[in-house]
Amino acid sequence: MAVDPERHARTIASLTDSPYDAIVASSPTEVLLLTGYWPVMGDSIAFFTSDGEVRVVIPEDEVELAQKTSAAKLIPYKPAGLHTLADPLQLLKGPLQGVIDGLALPHTRIGLQLGQGVQPSSYAVCTQFRSRLVELLRELAPASIYSGCDELLEDMKAVKTTKELELMQTAANVAAAGFVEAARCIRPGLRETDVAAAAQSAFETTEKAEGLQRSYGYFFCMSGPNSATADAAYARTRQRSIEDGDLVMIHANTCADGYWTDLTRTYVAGEPGDRQGDIRAAIDEARTTGLRAIRPGATGQQVDHAVRATMELHGFGNAFKHAAGHGVGFAAANPNGRPRIHPLSTDVLKAGMTFNLEPAAYFEGYGGMRHCDVVTVTNDGVKVMTEF
Amino acid sequence: MAVDPERHARTIASLTDSPYDAIVASSPTEVLLLTGYWPVMGDSIAFFTSDGEVRVVIPEDEVELAQKTSAAKLIPYKPAGLHTLADPLQLLKGPLQGVIDGLALPHTRIGLQLGQGVQPSSYAVCTQFRSRLVELLRELAPASIYSGCDELLEDMKAVKTTKELELMQTAANVAAAGFVEAARCIRPGLRETDVAAAAQSAFETTEKAEGLQRSYGYFFCMSGPNSATADAAYARTRQRSIEDGDLVMIHANTCADGYWTDLTRTYVAGEPGDRQGDIRAAIDEARTTGLRAIRPGATGQQVDHAVRATMELHGFGNAFKHAAGHGVGFAAANPNGRPRIHPLSTDVLKAGMTFNLEPAAYFEGYGGMRHCDVVTVTNDGVKVMTEF
Repeated sequence: MAVDPERHARTIASLTDSPYDAIVASSPTEVLLLTGYWPVMGDSIAFFTSDGEVRVVIPEDEVELAQKTSAAKLIPYKPAGLHTLADPLQLLKGPLQGVIDGLALPHTRIGLQLGQGVQPSSYAVCTQFRSRLVELLRELAPASIYSGCDELLEDMKAVKTTKELELMQTAANVAAAGFVEAARCIRPGLRETDVAAAAQSAFETTEKAEGLQRSYGYFFCMSGPNSATADAAYARTRQRSIEDGDLVMIHANTCADGYWTDLTRTYVAGEPGDRQGDIRAAIDEARTTGLRAIRPGATGQQVDHAVRATMELHGFGNAFKHAAGHGVGFAAANPNGRPRIHPLSTDVLKAGMTFNLEPAAYFEGYGGMRHCDVVTVTNDGVKVMTEF
Repeated sequence: MAVDPERHARTIASLTDSPYDAIVASSPTEVLLLTGYWPVMGDSIAFFTSDGEVRVVIPEDEVELAQKTSAAKLIPYKPAGLHTLADPLQLLKGPLQGVIDGLALPHTRIGLQLGQGVQPSSYAVCTQFRSRLVELLRELAPASIYSGCDELLEDMKAVKTTKELELMQTAANVAAAGFVEAARCIRPGLRETDVAAAAQSAFETTEKAEGLQRSYGYFFCMSGPNSATADAAYARTRQRSIEDGDLVMIHANTCADGYWTDLTRTYVAGEPGDRQGDIRAAIDEARTTGLRAIRPGATGQQVDHAVRATMELHGFGNAFKHAAGHGVGFAAANPNGRPRIHPLSTDVLKAGMTFNLEPAAYFEGYGGMRHCDVVTVTNDGVKVMTEF
């Protein structure tokens, strides 16, 4: 049994209703989903069967870490060592065969990750199996039927359990330390790199992270005209010196043991001007109308519309260049994370879903402002995890 | 033509000698190798043909960044937007078809990354295509023959060009700022998180990174008994308070526009004791004998042996638990990066190869010491990139 009985029961239910007898996954995020353990190096393989058996074939130097967050049965292997230069995949063969035989998987329908997806970084480097894992499984269990279960995994990740929500709240609390420091230190003359490093440092040293195995993440700072391009899929801190009156956007993706936040706040270096006040008023109101639209049964489209209509009312419709949000938690910054809060999204909100809400306005050559929260759909509305 | 004529000519030569008419790659490291551009989000696709044509199908918000480091012809696409919720792969179809037709690839032998590999992190999140890119290519150019060219790419990455060596040297110089700060601040009472954050911050704010598009990386601190387990495949900073007399290991993986370092230094909190002096003397000597063994024509085995024999002579043979090094530059921390400096490695050193040399000793419950440099094989010996 996995550490989180709620997730364990739900995964069994998902499998029972699916065309799969078992799921095999190696991407860290999906191993986390299935087992409660977020692998470091990406060379752990998780098995979850429809009768609730959970196994992780795991490099031996991650065993201690895994035991702290997962009660899955661990099958250690040694992916490298002084006595072999073998292809790491060859070293996986024996342990994988043991699990396949032990779980009686040779004649079953196995769901795998075959589609493209966005994976949060779990370390400085990470293993990717590409086509090789499915080839190896086909070799070890040739009578089984393999097919992609990417959509099922996407759906499973959308609604969080109580324990997962707690970890996301911890992640949000830890991330707050970085924003508090950014707000304190932003002033004309500092470079973006100085501010980002100060926020990052406050995040990395906060005692709020105590008890976590891995508190990990990224803070970015984009100022003045650089913040105007922050509607891109990625953030980037540069060496630009902040000028008096600049909009200064702090963006962060941080995680607590694999559960991610996606957060942005925008400050002004010096005294805010009228234009900045107008933009902030629009974003604050759009945030409020967006939050009001969130409840079980609402669609992503409806929530996006609530935010967008307010921005339009304030004359900032064209400046709000992206969707109002996307699923977060297992995903960090993935526009396809469920539920999608997008003009075309028919995704229906359910209690326990988590996503970001990010009203924003970007003005080329001038600057951008975004306020991005992480929220949970509750039984009767919404809870904001990031009230700071 | 790519910005780096030396790499461009070499890639043509590699393809000419290979069974492939073109290589198509999407992993950021291999896109960097083929084009000079290190993608952020992992959804750029590089094409390199045996007659030297280079194309990158690239998300439009990475175009400006790509133009600064690559002269490859860029074909922008929009992977997400307000007017579509389509599968991002579907949005790639048109641009990919254009490149395939333009390069006359429909009846050619195309090399792809199909094998497992270790990929450095390029951002907080990264796209993985898994099996879908090859499926899509098969759909768009069904008469072409697709096969894995992973080994060829591995070989191509081993020997760096003059420009690549310069960027690696810059990466080493920037990383040095973090180590200087760590050496300055380590003292009993600080937590590992405090020291790692201070080193990270110095790295992120140093002016040595000016001129780079992306100076990016990770600093870790492991002290006392925690440093004893630093022979693991990964490093991990904890909240432990450093005690007087502890060994304190600082490990970093950093990069300059995609070219990575793998670096470790070990300090003592307070006054070093005799045992620590003995370990350091052994490691210093092992480093010297290792460096002396490096020259074109030597094997990885010979270099590993030079280091290992010295550690054994000092009575630390069993404490030196891993190989003496592995290729770095395109790889960060990958034991299979070429050349492998390993007891069984027959990899032959050539001028321009870059790897780390990492004599170390780990004592369970007490601590570990490692000194990890990045070195280049020169025409007549070796150059250490990390003399700090």
